[in-house]
Amino acid sequence: MARKKREVDSPTSDASVGWVEAETVELFTAENPLTLKTGETLGPVMVEYEAYGKLNAAKDNAVLVLHALSGDAHAAGWDKKIADTGRHWRADRPGWWDAMIGPGKPIDTNRFYVICSNFLGSCYGTTGPSSVNPQTGKPYACDFPVVMISDWVRVQAELMDHLGIDKLYAVVGGSLGGQQAIEWALAYPERVKKAIVLAAAPRLSAQGLAFNAVGRHSIMKDPQFQHGDYYDQKEGPDAGLATARMLAHITYLSEEAMDEKFGRRLQDKEKPDFHLGQEFQIESYLEYQGRTFVERFDANSYLYITRAMDYYDAAADWGGGNLDQACKRVKADVMVVSFSTDWLYPPDECEAFARALTRNGSPVTYVDVPSAYGHDAFLIQVDEVGHLLRHFLTARGRA
Amino acid sequence: MARKKREVDSPTSDASVGWVEAETVELFTAENPLTLKTGETLGPVMVEYEAYGKLNAAKDNAVLVLHALSGDAHAAGWDKKIADTGRHWRADRPGWWDAMIGPGKPIDTNRFYVICSNFLGSCYGTTGPSSVNPQTGKPYACDFPVVMISDWVRVQAELMDHLGIDKLYAVVGGSLGGQQAIEWALAYPERVKKAIVLAAAPRLSAQGLAFNAVGRHSIMKDPQFQHGDYYDQKEGPDAGLATARMLAHITYLSEEAMDEKFGRRLQDKEKPDFHLGQEFQIESYLEYQGRTFVERFDANSYLYITRAMDYYDAAADWGGGNLDQACKRVKADVMVVSFSTDWLYPPDECEAFARALTRNGSPVTYVDVPSAYGHDAFLIQVDEVGHLLRHFLTARGRA
Repeated sequence: MARKKREVDSPTSDASVGWVEAETVELFTAENPLTLKTGETLGPVMVEYEAYGKLNAAKDNAVLVLHALSGDAHAAGWDKKIADTGRHWRADRPGWWDAMIGPGKPIDTNRFYVICSNFLGSCYGTTGPSSVNPQTGKPYACDFPVVMISDWVRVQAELMDHLGIDKLYAVVGGSLGGQQAIEWALAYPERVKKAIVLAAAPRLSAQGLAFNAVGRHSIMKDPQFQHGDYYDQKEGPDAGLATARMLAHITYLSEEAMDEKFGRRLQDKEKPDFHLGQEFQIESYLEYQGRTFVERFDANSYLYITRAMDYYDAAADWGGGNLDQACKRVKADVMVVSFSTDWLYPPDECEAFARALTRNGSPVTYVDVPSAYGHDAFLIQVDEVGHLLRHFLTARGRA
Repeated sequence: MARKKREVDSPTSDASVGWVEAETVELFTAENPLTLKTGETLGPVMVEYEAYGKLNAAKDNAVLVLHALSGDAHAAGWDKKIADTGRHWRADRPGWWDAMIGPGKPIDTNRFYVICSNFLGSCYGTTGPSSVNPQTGKPYACDFPVVMISDWVRVQAELMDHLGIDKLYAVVGGSLGGQQAIEWALAYPERVKKAIVLAAAPRLSAQGLAFNAVGRHSIMKDPQFQHGDYYDQKEGPDAGLATARMLAHITYLSEEAMDEKFGRRLQDKEKPDFHLGQEFQIESYLEYQGRTFVERFDANSYLYITRAMDYYDAAADWGGGNLDQACKRVKADVMVVSFSTDWLYPPDECEAFARALTRNGSPVTYVDVPSAYGHDAFLIQVDEVGHLLRHFLTARGRA
C-alpha cells in the first residue's frame, strides 16, 4: 500500500509541522491474522497512523506517542482531511497534542520522528467494532473480540516492524496512553529506551471500574443499542453514550477545578427558573460534552475500550500479581508524572509504580505536579508537562 | 382522619418498639393549598408519617427524624404493611434507622416521642409526582411543581402543628436529612432546641450538582420516560433510573471502602470470561443496586428530589449569600458530624458550617468521625453515630 504524504500546517506555532505521513496499513490479513491475548484471532487488521519529522539513517530517533480513550492518530498539525469513520466525523482541527509535538516543541520534530497510531477497537481508522467483519460483510458490532491493552501494544510493535524501527527512542502517553507506555516497557523491554507515563497507574481502582461499569450499563441498556447492531439504524444508543461521557467527564476534572470553573453559577441567568431542565452552568457544560461526543464517537468502541482499561493489570500480567516482580522486566529509563488532584489515577498509585521500578534498580524519575485540574491536567498544563518532556527526552540517560 | 395504631416488633432488639402510629394526614386541601417557595400552590397535600414512643404531657419530648433521598417515614420497627405506592412496593423490613430508634437505643423511645414523615415529592405516601392531580384525575408526573427543602420543612412544621407540638426537642438527619435539619434551625429557630446534622453541608458542590445532572439526564433521555407520563405504561424509564442509582451509589462509598469491599476481584470466578458483561464484583454489586432501586422507587420522584438537593443553599436563602449572616438566625444547640472519607459532603464543608455557627455565638459540637465508609458512614457506623447521638440528646444544653 502506497504512502500518502501531504503538507500540514500547524496553527499553534509559526513553524509548519512539515510533511506528515497519514496512512492506513494492513498489518495482519485474514490469512495471517493477529492472535489476541484471549486466544481469539482477528484479521484483517488495518492500522491508521500519522507521523511527523524524519526518521534518521540510524533509525534511532523514533518517538511513539500513545493516545487516550477518545483520541486518535492525529496527534499534531492541522488536519485538513475529513476522515470517513462510518457514522462519525472529524472536523478540521489541530492534533490532540499539537502543543507538545512539532519543530522546537517539547517532542521536537526537528530531532525526533514522531509516530501516533490509532489503537485496536477504536473508531478512528484502525480495525474496531464498526469495521466490516469479512465473514458477514457487515460491521462486527459486538461480535468484535475483546481486545486488551497488550493487544494494542502488540499491533503497535508490528507497526514499528513495518516502519523498520527496531528500538524506540521513547514511548509517551497520558491516561490510557500512559498504560500503553507501561505495557511497552514491560512487553518489549529491549525495544524501548525511554518511557514516559503521565496520569496513569499500572491498574484501575475499584472506583474506576465502577465508573466504567455505569457508563457501559448506560449504553447497553439504551433501547437503541440493539445488542450493538445499530449501524444500519437511524439512531444508535446516543442517549446512553452521552450519559457515559458526561459521567466520565466528571472523573477527568478535580472537584477544585469544577468549583473554580462552574461553582453553583446559573447558566445565562440571574435567578433560577425552577424546573427540571438546565439551570446550572455545570449542567449545560456536561450536556454539551455528552452531545458533541455522540457526534464523534462510536458506542461499541466505547464499550471495548473501557473494557480494555478495566482488564489492564501490569502486576497480574507480568509479575504474578507482584508489581516489583513485573518491574524487573523493565530496561527503559522511566518518567512517571502524576497530578496532585487526579482522582482517576491518584498520585499515590503512580508513586507506588515509580517506587516498584526503583526497587528493581531502574532509573526512574517521579514527579507529582501540583495541579488544580485533576486527571485532564496532562492535556491542560502544557507548560509544566512540556518542560518535563523536553528535559527527560534530551537527558543523556544510562545508555 | 382517625389514627391507625398497630403493634410493631423490632427485629434488631429484644424489646419491641411498642405502639407505632403510621398514618397519612391531609395537611393542606385543594381549597387551602400549600404555597410553595416558587410561589406556586399545591393541594391537597397528604403526608405520611410514623411515630414511636409517647408524647409527654408537656409536649416537649418530640424528636423529628429526617430521612434522606430514597428513605421514607418508616424509620424504626418492623413494618408488616405492604404500602401501595403506585408502581412501587416495599417489602416487610425494619425501619431504615431501626438501629438508632427504640427503647434504650440512642434515640430512646422510652424518653422521646420520635416522628418521621415522608417528604414532599417522594413516592412513599406523601404527595408527589405519582399522586393524582385533582385537576386532571391522572398522576401529576412532570406537572408536579418544583419543591424545595424549605417546602419539605414547611410541611413538617404543619405536621407538628397538627400533632400539637410547638417546639421540637430535636431534629436529626443525615445527608438530605441533615440539610432538612439545617433548614429547620434556620427557618424555625424558635421551634428547635437541638439540631443534629450528619454528613451534610449547607449546600452541594459543583461536583455534587454534576452527579445529579448526569443521573437526571439518564432518566429523562430514556425513551420510556415519555416526558414523565409513564404511569400507565408497561415500563417506566427503568434503565435510566438504574443508571442514575448506580452512579449515585458510587458517590455514597469511599474509594477506600470500594477497594476494601470489592477491589478488582472477579464475581464468582477465578479467571475473567473476556466479554462486555459482568466480570468484576463491583459491576455485579452496582447492577444489583440499580435493579432493586427501580423496583422500589419512582423516577419522577428521583428527578424532583435531586433537584431540591441542587437548589438548597442555606447561605443564599437566609444570609444573602453569607453563611455567617444566615447562622445568626440559629437558636438551637447544633451538632455537626462529618465522616472523614465522605466526598459528597466533605468534612471541610461541614466544618466550615460549624465554624460559621460558632462565630455567631451558637453552642456547636463538631465531630469528624474517622471513617473508611464514605458518605454512607452515617448509616453504617452505628456504634460511633449512636454514641454521639445519645450524648448530645441527653446533654443538658443551654436552655
